[in-house]
Amino acid sequence: MNRLHNGDFLLTWEHDVATLRAVLDTAEALEDLARAGLSCRVFETGLGLSIFRDHSTRTRYAFRSGCNLLGLMTEELDESTSQIAHGETVRETATMVGFLTEVIGIRDDMFLGEGDRYQREVATALEEGHKAGVLAQRPAVINLQSDLDHPTQSMADLMHLASLFGGLDNLKGKKLAMSWAHSPSYGKPLSVPQGVVTLMTRFGMNVVLAHPPGYGLVEETLETARRFAAESGGSFTVVDSMAEAFQDADAVYPKSWAPVMVMLERTRLLRAGETDKLKELEREALATNARFLDWECNDALMARTRGGKAAYLHCLPADVTDVSCSAGEVSAAVFERSRLDTYREAGHKPFIVAALILLTRFADPTEVVNRLAKAARPRRAG
Amino acid sequence: MNRLHNGDFLLTWEHDVATLRAVLDTAEALEDLARAGLSCRVFETGLGLSIFRDHSTRTRYAFRSGCNLLGLMTEELDESTSQIAHGETVRETATMVGFLTEVIGIRDDMFLGEGDRYQREVATALEEGHKAGVLAQRPAVINLQSDLDHPTQSMADLMHLASLFGGLDNLKGKKLAMSWAHSPSYGKPLSVPQGVVTLMTRFGMNVVLAHPPGYGLVEETLETARRFAAESGGSFTVVDSMAEAFQDADAVYPKSWAPVMVMLERTRLLRAGETDKLKELEREALATNARFLDWECNDALMARTRGGKAAYLHCLPADVTDVSCSAGEVSAAVFERSRLDTYREAGHKPFIVAALILLTRFADPTEVVNRLAKAARPRRAG
Amino acid sequence: MNRLHNGDFLLTWEHDVATLRAVLDTAEALEDLARAGLSCRVFETGLGLSIFRDHSTRTRYAFRSGCNLLGLMTEELDESTSQIAHGETVRETATMVGFLTEVIGIRDDMFLGEGDRYQREVATALEEGHKAGVLAQRPAVINLQSDLDHPTQSMADLMHLASLFGGLDNLKGKKLAMSWAHSPSYGKPLSVPQGVVTLMTRFGMNVVLAHPPGYGLVEETLETARRFAAESGGSFTVVDSMAEAFQDADAVYPKSWAPVMVMLERTRLLRAGETDKLKELEREALATNARFLDWECNDALMARTRGGKAAYLHCLPADVTDVSCSAGEVSAAVFERSRLDTYREAGHKPFIVAALILLTRFADPTEVVNRLAKAARPRRAG
Repeated sequence: MNRLHNGDFLLTWEHDVATLRAVLDTAEALEDLARAGLSCRVFETGLGLSIFRDHSTRTRYAFRSGCNLLGLMTEELDESTSQIAHGETVRETATMVGFLTEVIGIRDDMFLGEGDRYQREVATALEEGHKAGVLAQRPAVINLQSDLDHPTQSMADLMHLASLFGGLDNLKGKKLAMSWAHSPSYGKPLSVPQGVVTLMTRFGMNVVLAHPPGYGLVEETLETARRFAAESGGSFTVVDSMAEAFQDADAVYPKSWAPVMVMLERTRLLRAGETDKLKELEREALATNARFLDWECNDALMARTRGGKAAYLHCLPADVTDVSCSAGEVSAAVFERSRLDTYREAGHKPFIVAALILLTRFADPTEVVNRLAKAARPRRAG
Repeated sequence: MNRLHNGDFLLTWEHDVATLRAVLDTAEALEDLARAGLSCRVFETGLGLSIFRDHSTRTRYAFRSGCNLLGLMTEELDESTSQIAHGETVRETATMVGFLTEVIGIRDDMFLGEGDRYQREVATALEEGHKAGVLAQRPAVINLQSDLDHPTQSMADLMHLASLFGGLDNLKGKKLAMSWAHSPSYGKPLSVPQGVVTLMTRFGMNVVLAHPPGYGLVEETLETARRFAAESGGSFTVVDSMAEAFQDADAVYPKSWAPVMVMLERTRLLRAGETDKLKELEREALATNARFLDWECNDALMARTRGGKAAYLHCLPADVTDVSCSAGEVSAAVFERSRLDTYREAGHKPFIVAALILLTRFADPTEVVNRLAKAARPRRAG
Repeated sequence: MNRLHNGDFLLTWEHDVATLRAVLDTAEALEDLARAGLSCRVFETGLGLSIFRDHSTRTRYAFRSGCNLLGLMTEELDESTSQIAHGETVRETATMVGFLTEVIGIRDDMFLGEGDRYQREVATALEEGHKAGVLAQRPAVINLQSDLDHPTQSMADLMHLASLFGGLDNLKGKKLAMSWAHSPSYGKPLSVPQGVVTLMTRFGMNVVLAHPPGYGLVEETLETARRFAAESGGSFTVVDSMAEAFQDADAVYPKSWAPVMVMLERTRLLRAGETDKLKELEREALATNARFLDWECNDALMARTRGGKAAYLHCLPADVTDVSCSAGEVSAAVFERSRLDTYREAGHKPFIVAALILLTRFADPTEVVNRLAKAARPRRAG
């Protein structure tokens, strides 16, 4: 049974493992069809709408190409990024753009405590509109990054890990180091590490989260990761040393993020429009970051990993030392060795998006995919 | 005979009642097909171009989803909103974006005396280009709101009224109060009330226009409404009291708009680039508005309507007291009771757009719709 | 054999004449099909991505409608126009937006020495990604205007000339005057004249380039034009008088561009962020321009051309004296006589784009076009 049918996809931890496996299986099948040059078109017409309340190139492309793969035309709702809208405005706008829409993808990751809440408001409005018969169909809401989770990213990461280690079942017992890393910027969302630790613990991995003091994740996600680790026979530990996390790791994910307290204060100041204090906050945050310049993924640290050959993961773009900045998340040597692999990791994202659309819109996505494979229509005809 | 074929749709009052009925019938048929999940695709390829010289979310979505429903890809021409272009620039640009375009939707409502004129310039340029063989086809121009009319809105309103009262013919003798209402903003276009009074008078309604002194509509539209009322056996009266307009009304449409004189002065100042005087004009206009705070559609006024139960119409977004502002067009209680109905009203707009495209592009739209119904291709296939 | 298959189209002078003829033949065939109302759709799904690092209306529309004609959905990559990105950023972004993309159209004409280089970086990144198996397909890069060439424009110009003179072969021995003309603006790219002189010399035309001292083109393109003229039996000469160039000309192309030195200095100052010096440079450049106010294509000059009836070409928009400015490239009388012809010239551009897509994506484009002609599916069905 497809539990995503007519539903949304906001947080991976709201869905059971069977559902997540179905997403991966569908994404893989679609990627195979696309690589074979076969058409995956299942919509004659229909809209995929995106709302980006933060700048985006990669996720935006992933959403649009995922929609296009299935035959949906994409459209962007131009919401101001600085505004935190709620209530009637959200309710009305959601309905106004829902009449002929199959899916609404939302990125809203700027304000801790806001993004997930906003996505739920949209979903609730669509549900109300559909129940009242205003909307003939109930568009699916897909989280393209919120303050809590970044599920299209973490699912693409998972797909990549499965491909590196020969299948999902082989992840059991593998050690993953999700580590904070230095970056000369501030205010990066927490959703990537939160998405990773809550997802990989479900597949029996031994997940170690490493970060300097003060850089902890939102408590709810830590609890979730602990619970999932216990359920899956994996483990979840938090340490304050990159070196410790990397020890014997099979895969490492070194990435910068902002302290929870900074993100909360930033939300407060932005809402209050206190521009001067925002600049002060940025200065302070960068100064704090600078105390941890040695949190860089380099050859010395990689040597500690299993056989010195841990897989290097990143959601891109990475802050690469001496390439994009003077002191970044990763050394040029380590990054360059894994560069094409990070591209492969990213390459799954359009298919994760397409799989989520297929699962939310069709009662029996497996039958749909089988039908596409059997039809074997070339994507380029004449 | 389809008189819209190869033509434009700029003002409802340029078309006969039979044509308007054909638009509604087609829109209804398309909405039925879409609600049944059937494909309305009639274009293999082709472009629907929009030019928005004012910010838009709802109409923009309506245009794009109407285009998509029929299989057109949408594209936006990014014109500066502050510029009042004419002459060779308009002529050339219109042709340059017309080569493979089926329809051009234009919103240009900021400047009284300009919007309709601009749309006609575009249409004339396309006509010239087509006659000279430069354009293989002559794209239709559809008014998505001008200084004079907002026909996709008023036609959606009419479709909504017809559905509320059991058909177009039942509108005869019903009383509609199109009333000015207070809003803490200035410069709202006149096209909605103008569109409503000129359209509803054609179907035998008794239309009462209510506004404070100085908030009258463009004279041409008042004359048109008077003439149509006489022809259809309805009536058209202008009063200066919301209460009087609401008395025994079957439907009310309370909505803010700017005084003609303010709009003309604004056009002049914008053209002259007199920023300081524009701010002064805004201050004065808001002060004038504030003298009519009691022009709010609330329970006391609604009690005066027929059985206390008049239908409440609005083009959205409404300025709702204590929700979106402190003193708006409508009380929260009245708005909340009719909220889902205003969503339904708006839901007709994508289908009005699609119907206009079908009627302007196909000689026999009825045959096209019948063919779609007979084919009954699901919009989501596999 | 189709030599463009799986390749790019950056500079016309990188391709042999047979390839250019194939592009024109394909464009003509597609234009015929489109004018007959027949579908040219060859893609079930797929993306055409554009990157505009300079403002564009006409070329943007040409790219989008060319893509749409074949069934590709278009998407825009929103790159900052002021930024000169290179290295890892370009490499990564190119791959990130290439997974399901058939073609990437790039305009980057602001900085002399940069645009072509950027386009090659994108192409190299795509090549690497494809060879490594990251990209299942290798998107084609199409130059929508660089610092060196504007091939979709010059190929449309060539198609126009061929149609005016009864075929490509009839261009042999015809005289074309590519002349600088005055405009009250500065910093116009050199790519149009460079594209024209390097292309028309290949078809045996006698091309005369005229410009005031200091307004020469990039040396590489002059050499290329000289070489091609020698090969084709045409000629290429440079003069410093519009009148001389116009003498007995069969076609004239009077158009403003900036001196190479100004463009190089502008690139340097923009890169250094020297805003004050940029303003000074603009003042100086306009002052220099003003010394050549008499470089205007008017009736007196046109009278010198063959039979006084040379074809007037322009890439649009033209600076027309007393229409768009007080002293422009062309007099109102001359322009108005040829206005519809310049529209026709521009009308080929969407089909040039579509032809380039067809040739870069299909091994046997002739077979594809023949199949489309035979199928004869109407673009508007029911």
